[in-house]
Amino acid sequence: MTSATTLRLVSPSGALPDPQRLTRAVARLRELGFAVSVDGHALRRVQRFAGHDGQRLQALHRSARGRAGVVMATRGGYGLSRLLHRIDYALLGEAIVHRGQRWVGHSDFTALQLALLARCGAVTWSGPMADTDFGADTVDSITADSFVDAVHGRQEAVGFVCDDAPRGLDAHGVLWGGNLAMLCSVVGTPYLPAVDGVLFVEDVGVHPYAIERMFTQLLHAGIVQRQRAVVLGSFTGYRLGEHDSGYDLAAARDWVRAQLRPHRVPVLSGLPFGHQRTKLTLPHGAPCRVVRDGGEVFVIFDETH
Amino acid sequence: MTSATTLRLVSPSGALPDPQRLTRAVARLRELGFAVSVDGHALRRVQRFAGHDGQRLQALHRSARGRAGVVMATRGGYGLSRLLHRIDYALLGEAIVHRGQRWVGHSDFTALQLALLARCGAVTWSGPMADTDFGADTVDSITADSFVDAVHGRQEAVGFVCDDAPRGLDAHGVLWGGNLAMLCSVVGTPYLPAVDGVLFVEDVGVHPYAIERMFTQLLHAGIVQRQRAVVLGSFTGYRLGEHDSGYDLAAARDWVRAQLRPHRVPVLSGLPFGHQRTKLTLPHGAPCRVVRDGGEVFVIFDETH
Repeated sequence: MTSATTLRLVSPSGALPDPQRLTRAVARLRELGFAVSVDGHALRRVQRFAGHDGQRLQALHRSARGRAGVVMATRGGYGLSRLLHRIDYALLGEAIVHRGQRWVGHSDFTALQLALLARCGAVTWSGPMADTDFGADTVDSITADSFVDAVHGRQEAVGFVCDDAPRGLDAHGVLWGGNLAMLCSVVGTPYLPAVDGVLFVEDVGVHPYAIERMFTQLLHAGIVQRQRAVVLGSFTGYRLGEHDSGYDLAAARDWVRAQLRPHRVPVLSGLPFGHQRTKLTLPHGAPCRVVRDGGEVFVIFDETH
Repeated sequence: MTSATTLRLVSPSGALPDPQRLTRAVARLRELGFAVSVDGHALRRVQRFAGHDGQRLQALHRSARGRAGVVMATRGGYGLSRLLHRIDYALLGEAIVHRGQRWVGHSDFTALQLALLARCGAVTWSGPMADTDFGADTVDSITADSFVDAVHGRQEAVGFVCDDAPRGLDAHGVLWGGNLAMLCSVVGTPYLPAVDGVLFVEDVGVHPYAIERMFTQLLHAGIVQRQRAVVLGSFTGYRLGEHDSGYDLAAARDWVRAQLRPHRVPVLSGLPFGHQRTKLTLPHGAPCRVVRDGGEVFVIFDETH
């Protein structure tokens, strides 16, 4: 097994706008107790990407061959979709499934997480990224604590305030999902895992009608109605217009909830995950149990995964 | 057979921002020789939609039961995705396939066109809409001429300037596609037609990276590499940022073209179709032949469909 105290930073997606932020992220991660190494291509830039496709691909493969216990993406953007058909899944699967390497990220990184779950059954971590979270002016303490606890196997459960969980909620299943646009972008491809579990989703900069349209695709594809629960992270950075005439995120959510009611799939709000400072680190592809306790919902993880 | 001289306007998607535009569109369509009727729900508004889901659904069904030879959507927006699983395809299929009713629209309307092709093999028309095109300050003459010729069965071919068609281009197949986001939103669902033909796509307000990501989904899903040709309409209304560092629409197109080269699928630019004033009316789901003649490409239609 690899040790969770060694951490490797890799850039599989967008180029880093400011190398200073990575320096700061490295210092912060060292303060949290990690021996940090940075992939040699992490600061490359080719157009909007952190290097050519082949360079970013090599960086992923190099990380899987390495001894780091944690592999963290520097940031999202766009770029992993281009690589999905070229990734050596046997190599990454061996590192993750057999040697216990922990891969962490979100946003564009969701594409890789879904593909790894689909192709290798690999559990990865939906969580913070170096540039995005640890390179920011200040680091959110919940984000840092959840990340450290998660990669050291000490996070037995997470809880959050939720005002719309049904009484008696007790759902079991594999936790999966991440960025909603990335999830929809692998529907109909070999990179969509066949999971009937607990689906969590988030997105940024997407108007509620487009969020609803993505859910509609998941409905028409038969994906959401097979889940035991749908958990909503944050949906931020969009702007409503006059023409919306009262249609908003709540309206979109209510429509989705109404479609899922006959299938008895609860839709829960409030998961601290998404394009916001506070984000939990969640085991993507691992079994979990989701229960309500008063005004809170707890996601309880199986310690044995 | 229904007569192409009677035309019905229906609002299956977004609410009309200004009823005056519909009045103007009706006058313009009458000038073009059509006896125009307007569905009773065409000017409804519920939030951003042209009526509740049930009302918009009824309007579609009412149009199919009616005697109009042409059924034209007033505008796009968002709303058809919500209805796809509730549409009476036998009813619409009977009107279109057996009685020759011509359904016309684009943008959000693409969802209905794809579903009708998938479920009924129905040929519909990718073309102008009442509010969007005929309600505008001025009507583009090519748009009007192509529409009139098409619905009267007089449009044998369309041609356009194209600087990137391969020499000797001669591709045969069913013409299909429309709005790229709508196409991707039905991937993995029963509303995606299984067509190996000539795929045309357009979009508006989508950054080139997201356009490329949509093509990537079509690649991973095995859809684009099965086509005889891919024809690009207009991609407009996006803004490049400093962070793109030279990545632009041409870069996205070049990447897509490089992926399709081993499959010998040509990617052609310049089709006058999309969210722009000049748009041809194209038979969606009908066989066609695509040939290059000097600096132009011609799409030749089979007159018997």
